[in-house]
Amino acid sequence: MNDINSSNRIQTTQSHTAAEAAINEWRRTITKLDWNKLPELLDDNVAYRNPASFDALHGKDTLITILRVVFEVFENFTYLRHFSSDIGYVLEFSARVGDENLFGVDLIEFDENGKITDLMVMIRPASVALTLATEVGKRLAASQTTE
Amino acid sequence: MNDINSSNRIQTTQSHTAAEAAINEWRRTITKLDWNKLPELLDDNVAYRNPASFDALHGKDTLITILRVVFEVFENFTYLRHFSSDIGYVLEFSARVGDENLFGVDLIEFDENGKITDLMVMIRPASVALTLATEVGKRLAASQTTE
Repeated sequence: MNDINSSNRIQTTQSHTAAEAAINEWRRTITKLDWNKLPELLDDNVAYRNPASFDALHGKDTLITILRVVFEVFENFTYLRHFSSDIGYVLEFSARVGDENLFGVDLIEFDENGKITDLMVMIRPASVALTLATEVGKRLAASQTTE
Repeated sequence: MNDINSSNRIQTTQSHTAAEAAINEWRRTITKLDWNKLPELLDDNVAYRNPASFDALHGKDTLITILRVVFEVFENFTYLRHFSSDIGYVLEFSARVGDENLFGVDLIEFDENGKITDLMVMIRPASVALTLATEVGKRLAASQTTE
């Protein structure tokens, strides 16, 4: 966990310029909670694999709706280490949910146009992932009944 | 999640030859359950950050003891996507615990000698991470009382 700053450099190849630009825009968008910019980063049928369920959800609107609520619950969200491959990136983050601190990762894949096609999220400790899922589920249910 | 095979190539710089050799040896060792070879890959004070607890455990023997039990519980363990950075690697895996399938990641850091100094593991779904932690805890407790 040492030398976190040096890990923020992106290793990439020339063929991944679109993905590199997109991952930087993803980080900016999420960090600034700039939800209006998020749709243009996502493939229409983006898969979202959340920390609490096995099966993926699909679709841009679904993902954005959930992320907005997750970031209402998260406090002190910070991106940490950054890893890359030929097909995508892993971004580690830390955050707080209520009194509990967590670490998590976004595993992000892009298509050739730099659109995000797949987002898998994992969080530790697992108990905090479940606390988060419960709170997000409550808020989503409440927002649906008041619409 | 498409094109998993192409993600197995390692992106690295010349300064990371030791780490690259070590991550390949880590994959081989874990995949083959070659526990006798594992000590030489680890720093004596390696930090282990498991999926269920926030705090790290430290020490080579502690990590190996836990991993041996985890891999008694895991079935169908397979490494999937592979990501790299200047300071380490992320290896995604899938496995089964009882009737439940899971995805996980190893976030692995190396020192300049190619020894693993930090292993963080996250697993989704979170409920399966807790099932795993409970089962591993039981087995560790049972092995300590029979020693």
